[in-house]
Amino acid sequence: MTSTFAPLTSAFAQAIISSDPSKDPVALDAARTAIIDFLGCAIAGAGDRTTGILADTVGANLPGEAILLGSSRRTDPLVAALVNGHAGHVLDYDDVHASVRGHPTTVIIPALLAFAAEREFSADALIASYIVGLEAMARLGLSLGSKHYENGFHATATLGTIGATAAIAHLTRASIDETAVALGLAATQSSGLRLQFGTDANPFHAGMAARSGLLSARMAAAGFGGAPDFLDNPVGFHSVYAFGAERPSAVTENWGSPWQIVTPGLTLKAYPCCTASHPVASLGIGLNREGLEADAIEYITFTYPPGADAALVVSKPGNGIEARFSPEYVFAAALIDGALRLDHFDERPVLPRLMDLARRAGRRHDETAPRMSSDPRTRFVIVDIVLRNGSAIQRRFDGLPGLSDPAEKFRDATARNPAFADVPSLVRTMSSTADLRQLLALLNQDAAQNPE
Amino acid sequence: MTSTFAPLTSAFAQAIISSDPSKDPVALDAARTAIIDFLGCAIAGAGDRTTGILADTVGANLPGEAILLGSSRRTDPLVAALVNGHAGHVLDYDDVHASVRGHPTTVIIPALLAFAAEREFSADALIASYIVGLEAMARLGLSLGSKHYENGFHATATLGTIGATAAIAHLTRASIDETAVALGLAATQSSGLRLQFGTDANPFHAGMAARSGLLSARMAAAGFGGAPDFLDNPVGFHSVYAFGAERPSAVTENWGSPWQIVTPGLTLKAYPCCTASHPVASLGIGLNREGLEADAIEYITFTYPPGADAALVVSKPGNGIEARFSPEYVFAAALIDGALRLDHFDERPVLPRLMDLARRAGRRHDETAPRMSSDPRTRFVIVDIVLRNGSAIQRRFDGLPGLSDPAEKFRDATARNPAFADVPSLVRTMSSTADLRQLLALLNQDAAQNPE
Repeated sequence: MTSTFAPLTSAFAQAIISSDPSKDPVALDAARTAIIDFLGCAIAGAGDRTTGILADTVGANLPGEAILLGSSRRTDPLVAALVNGHAGHVLDYDDVHASVRGHPTTVIIPALLAFAAEREFSADALIASYIVGLEAMARLGLSLGSKHYENGFHATATLGTIGATAAIAHLTRASIDETAVALGLAATQSSGLRLQFGTDANPFHAGMAARSGLLSARMAAAGFGGAPDFLDNPVGFHSVYAFGAERPSAVTENWGSPWQIVTPGLTLKAYPCCTASHPVASLGIGLNREGLEADAIEYITFTYPPGADAALVVSKPGNGIEARFSPEYVFAAALIDGALRLDHFDERPVLPRLMDLARRAGRRHDETAPRMSSDPRTRFVIVDIVLRNGSAIQRRFDGLPGLSDPAEKFRDATARNPAFADVPSLVRTMSSTADLRQLLALLNQDAAQNPE
Repeated sequence: MTSTFAPLTSAFAQAIISSDPSKDPVALDAARTAIIDFLGCAIAGAGDRTTGILADTVGANLPGEAILLGSSRRTDPLVAALVNGHAGHVLDYDDVHASVRGHPTTVIIPALLAFAAEREFSADALIASYIVGLEAMARLGLSLGSKHYENGFHATATLGTIGATAAIAHLTRASIDETAVALGLAATQSSGLRLQFGTDANPFHAGMAARSGLLSARMAAAGFGGAPDFLDNPVGFHSVYAFGAERPSAVTENWGSPWQIVTPGLTLKAYPCCTASHPVASLGIGLNREGLEADAIEYITFTYPPGADAALVVSKPGNGIEARFSPEYVFAAALIDGALRLDHFDERPVLPRLMDLARRAGRRHDETAPRMSSDPRTRFVIVDIVLRNGSAIQRRFDGLPGLSDPAEKFRDATARNPAFADVPSLVRTMSSTADLRQLLALLNQDAAQNPE
């Protein structure tokens, strides 16, 4: 029943609504793991200065039944989607996906949680819809090619809007026509510029995508019309956002075989700082365990493939927010403290005891290595350390480190607040409507009331 | 006090906040005329099916003090900006501006009216801020060049978001830094795809731009951060939206000399149908006045320059909405009825007595003429009519017809409802805070309660 007028949009809508990830235990397990990881990040982010400003600005005092994560308030669903998406991304500690080239969970889960204020559904349905929304977002990422990101769009936002709409369309088993319209309404709200990286607006992008995704699904369900051909129209999605690098067949080919949440899968951040600074973090923690002392070090050199430190725009950070983007500081903190905690990367000034070592580090590029691509397997870092005693140490890290079990990260992110202690085990086992209601009740508590 | 880091963004912000159009009587008069024209369109659009769906979907029942035009309800300001922007554009009867290549007033005025629920200001201040917001929007249109529109963006939405933010920044006399941040927050919310033309989402674009513009100004004023360099960043606004056709100097050169609202000025639509169908409408009305009878006509041929009828995608309309985009139907209605009314272009089926003539019309292109550009002066239409008695008639229209006085259009658009009868004279004379409050009260009445 696909339309000859819009075959690709129809095929995409059909794949979204007829998908069934509920029989794939590996995908379901990956989804539960990612949801635990995301919820920890969002509860930690609920207390951020900018989350508070945003909540006040968009109207968190408006009436409504949607929960704010890590807060005992409830509000309007569109506002909740926006604020929760922002909170999940504000620490830049949430998962990333290579096909998206961005952060899917902090867009899709807030949209689904907000939708729970308007419609009853089960935890199983939420998990399946999340997998499908992520699939839609990742497929669009592959189909757009690399220029979308390189020329300046923030894929978390632009693709997230459509991924969130897809998740809700799957959840409601909308018709093909209604789904195609909803996806087009999402596409026409797709925005977000990478020039906002490193500012308060970066996490806001995740929130606006969650809100726009929910709104698009709502509008189409209410009979609001829109173009049914956003992927087929001659001035359509690829014409506007791909800059000539599109591969439209990637939208549906091998859909769910395997699911994108399984292969290539999500990377759950191991440290609360920029993804690109993770390899030196792992190297620093490893050298700490080997017993290397900062005082013994004369000079440190990081060698990257060309382009691999492009996101690491800071060398001499002033505060912890900037330090997320400084491999020099990240390495110093990892080596000296043997761990990277949230308080290494908050708004307070950087610690002189760590800056003392960070100042002794520098970078170079191996121009003979292939330029870094979005594929994390092309990443590597070599650290060369000259010791004061004249000897030298070299270590190398290939790829990106990531967590397989976010349990300890969740405890750290929630400051071991017992109010949230049962969330991970509930997410591991939840299936019914009652389970989802219980999860919402647990999450709707105030993170700032920390008994520790 | 411009930043060397972001000279163009700073210069743009500086121009916006330090502009003073209040001494230019020609600009002020053009603004009052445009506001009357817009308010008529929005009051007529308040009763549209899609305005009602949208209001319910985004939350028109939310509490708040912002007015809904042509409705006795009040709601949250962000919701009001969205719904009023949509209502103003839903009939495609509102003004257009060649530098924007879109519709400025239906974005900027709804944002300013919604802001009136949060801050007291005078009618004079509203008019000046509207002129400055339009200037900002038009300047960005000139700086982006033609590919922005041609490749698929809807400039009403993408540029409108920034124009609405600029209007509020001018109104509040924000600092340069805060204005630069607010404009960047608007830019990162700039979206809207032309593939939605002819659907319910087309007017929604105006509403989402009004809402995002208001939100951006609110966020920056509340201390939410963002990039201060959206026009200077290497992956900035022009990199993402201009497709290589940008001319950044157009952002500020000759700012306000003369004001864009004066030269090239707004075109106020004379008929409630697509702009591109206006020339044949004028020709049809002229031939009606000459006494030409439909029964005397054998066949009609319209000759356009290449590209000039690209927006006129319908030849055999089924209902009045489609008929807006059919020059054959527009000409038939104009010739037979001697006028084009809102009821010619509503959701009801087209009238057989008009289709009978429309079916006898066809189109051709003069391939020797220069291709139609965004400059309305390159437009022309020649109508050749073969009569049943064997004789022939030829008429030609160059450029676009437009209204200079929207008084009669306003009366028609408000169905001569006395509730709104005083609006045009009040807009002509308003200056104080009390005047603006009185205007808001007049507009906050139910258009559906028509005593006629």
